[in-house]
Amino acid sequence: MSATSYHAMWEQLNLDIPAHDGLLAVLGKFYGDIYLSQSGRLQGMEYLDFVLSEVHGLRIKELQDAKAAGRKIIGTFCVFVPEELSLAAGAVHIGLCSGAEVGSAEAEQLVPRNTCALIKSFIGFKLARLCPFTESCDLIIGETTCDGKKKAYEAFAEHVPLEILEVPQRKEAADRTLWKSEVLRLKTRLEELTGNTITAEKLQAAIKLVNDKRRALQRLNRLRQADPAPISGRDALLINQVSFYDDPVRFTASINTLCDQIEARIAGGEGVAPAGTPRLLLSGCPMAVPNWKLPFIVESSGAVIVGEESCIGTRNTRDLVSEEATTMDGMIDALVDRYLKIDCACFTPNLERQANIQTMVKDLKADGVLHYSLMFCQPYEHEAIKIEKTLQQAGVPMLAIATDYSMEDVEQLKTRIEAFVEMLK
Amino acid sequence: MSATSYHAMWEQLNLDIPAHDGLLAVLGKFYGDIYLSQSGRLQGMEYLDFVLSEVHGLRIKELQDAKAAGRKIIGTFCVFVPEELSLAAGAVHIGLCSGAEVGSAEAEQLVPRNTCALIKSFIGFKLARLCPFTESCDLIIGETTCDGKKKAYEAFAEHVPLEILEVPQRKEAADRTLWKSEVLRLKTRLEELTGNTITAEKLQAAIKLVNDKRRALQRLNRLRQADPAPISGRDALLINQVSFYDDPVRFTASINTLCDQIEARIAGGEGVAPAGTPRLLLSGCPMAVPNWKLPFIVESSGAVIVGEESCIGTRNTRDLVSEEATTMDGMIDALVDRYLKIDCACFTPNLERQANIQTMVKDLKADGVLHYSLMFCQPYEHEAIKIEKTLQQAGVPMLAIATDYSMEDVEQLKTRIEAFVEMLK
Repeated sequence: MSATSYHAMWEQLNLDIPAHDGLLAVLGKFYGDIYLSQSGRLQGMEYLDFVLSEVHGLRIKELQDAKAAGRKIIGTFCVFVPEELSLAAGAVHIGLCSGAEVGSAEAEQLVPRNTCALIKSFIGFKLARLCPFTESCDLIIGETTCDGKKKAYEAFAEHVPLEILEVPQRKEAADRTLWKSEVLRLKTRLEELTGNTITAEKLQAAIKLVNDKRRALQRLNRLRQADPAPISGRDALLINQVSFYDDPVRFTASINTLCDQIEARIAGGEGVAPAGTPRLLLSGCPMAVPNWKLPFIVESSGAVIVGEESCIGTRNTRDLVSEEATTMDGMIDALVDRYLKIDCACFTPNLERQANIQTMVKDLKADGVLHYSLMFCQPYEHEAIKIEKTLQQAGVPMLAIATDYSMEDVEQLKTRIEAFVEMLK
Repeated sequence: MSATSYHAMWEQLNLDIPAHDGLLAVLGKFYGDIYLSQSGRLQGMEYLDFVLSEVHGLRIKELQDAKAAGRKIIGTFCVFVPEELSLAAGAVHIGLCSGAEVGSAEAEQLVPRNTCALIKSFIGFKLARLCPFTESCDLIIGETTCDGKKKAYEAFAEHVPLEILEVPQRKEAADRTLWKSEVLRLKTRLEELTGNTITAEKLQAAIKLVNDKRRALQRLNRLRQADPAPISGRDALLINQVSFYDDPVRFTASINTLCDQIEARIAGGEGVAPAGTPRLLLSGCPMAVPNWKLPFIVESSGAVIVGEESCIGTRNTRDLVSEEATTMDGMIDALVDRYLKIDCACFTPNLERQANIQTMVKDLKADGVLHYSLMFCQPYEHEAIKIEKTLQQAGVPMLAIATDYSMEDVEQLKTRIEAFVEMLK
């Protein structure tokens, strides 16, 4: 997707240049088919198209410039790693490549075959030298949210600088204590890495900055309550994906501009699909770039996606950090509490997620839920069973899909999703 | 296996009598083929044969008698649940059925198909009403050792009285704090359930009692260093399995008697296989009754098993609780520390296990390691990859097997294991 002018930079990052060129070509074609082919897109999506086209180019150049200016790059794979701390330490905080089927053969030397596509992908990206984000990192923060990642990080640590953040498994007082000690440990680790002290002033500014990003995404999500749907699920997913690696200030401004356009569109009664088009809530596992398979199938099957109940979606944007505190202690507590609210399937029980899905279905006027699990993702596969029962009781149809990044099951998925959508009409 | 005289008791426990009769018949046949067919067995194994033959009979009768006398029955699926606390509270502490393929269709209504056989089994035993141990329980203590169990317990809790014990994922100071609070919470819960206060005196006696059981099993394991091997791996596994549900005092005495016989056998240079028979260490996931598939294949393939690096093996018996403390606080700390030593794959990192395997290989003079993972058990499947590398560096051959409870892969496993054993000669 990016121009050849970045080849020197990619070589410096030790990427596998021919393979990387190939990856970008495939990604460009894929993006064209899935995104640029849409009609009636909002003008503000041009910014997202540009960011995506420069995902391994200009954005990586910015990271290199930041590094040259003495800033550190922090990579993550999970919404539990508080971006606020990285920013307050003067670092750049980015999500890493994990959405494409690359380096699978290499990855399966390090992790079992029965490992979800996301984990295999981030290891594959590293071993195949195809992710300039990973190669730019001064530190990667892993976490213990699932067995797959927890154990995969042990192998991954032999290839990248890695620190593990322990996420507890319940939400009792003792868990909060553990989690707070982990947040404080991360704070110290980031201060040591960057050489910058995280002052109350800096943390306060970072909390405001990340909250502003979440507020913009919350605004976007609220606007999607409109019927006809003013923006496609594909575009909304892309926005959420880009939120993990774009510059947060620039990103927030661009999303607010886009939301202005959406408001105008809603006022004009316009949308990306006719009013009455079946509306689906997508729920479950995260979809990292360029994992657009399911949204594309859904929106090619006569439905529109109106929400993403996912880490790359509302699980990352629902809750703000309280901005009331001004002392360091108070702000750390606010961070601890906000992150412990996340309704990840790693918790037992995780009743909040059940309630949040019901609320989203209602607010977004969803006609049904498409539950998406990555194959071998035990936490979300388990919850899918329970959520289907709860939704059934509430009279909300749900289709459970377990898939990976391969395209082998596209036709089968299309058949199932078309039948589901037909049933909703 | 048991006589029909228990039918009234089983009916009271609401077992599915015809299905249960069928299960016992299959189990009896299976036990005959795998166990009673062995030649040169130790006389002391008669006790184990008896216990196994009465596993759903006399032992269940004992539990009913205990209940009638006001004692509570605590069921578990994991070595992290401190038996000492149950005993100090005057309760009976037992492991529950999870080693046979029963009720799979019912279980798959509650948990994903991609769930390990052990989890499907305990849910299947409950839903199919086939486990008199589960039906006798006043409380079952689950734990958060893996995603599969953690999430399966949420569904299981709708069918049994369940309490979840949170096992942390690292072994740092903050984790010990969490774990200690969980141990104390369990103590309170057991006191409430039983109506008995856990006094320092009772806890001290319980620590001694459980340590004595571990000491007997440690003694057995040490004796297995002898060549020729004085006891089959099948019999040693059975002993470890029975240790989870037999009366601990009676069991300990019988194992010490058996060890006396083993010592005499070693003194006479006798064994269950000729000196020089390839010796294998079995390592990995637990094997609950009647999961004897792999040991039987191994010992029918010209090798002998000399150790079980497993929860139903040394992971449960390696470490004693320190008996130095006499105060409640001191004993709780001793319990906390002992259980946090467990080298379960749920921890990250889990370097202790690597070291423990190497030590066992050396002490037991094992010629190779057979690593056994239950299919879809991510923690142990991950560790298998790492352990194979470490053992390779140490010049110890390892064969990694991932299987379940079905008999469909027996011939394939036999071929692989025979080839492995041949290589060791």
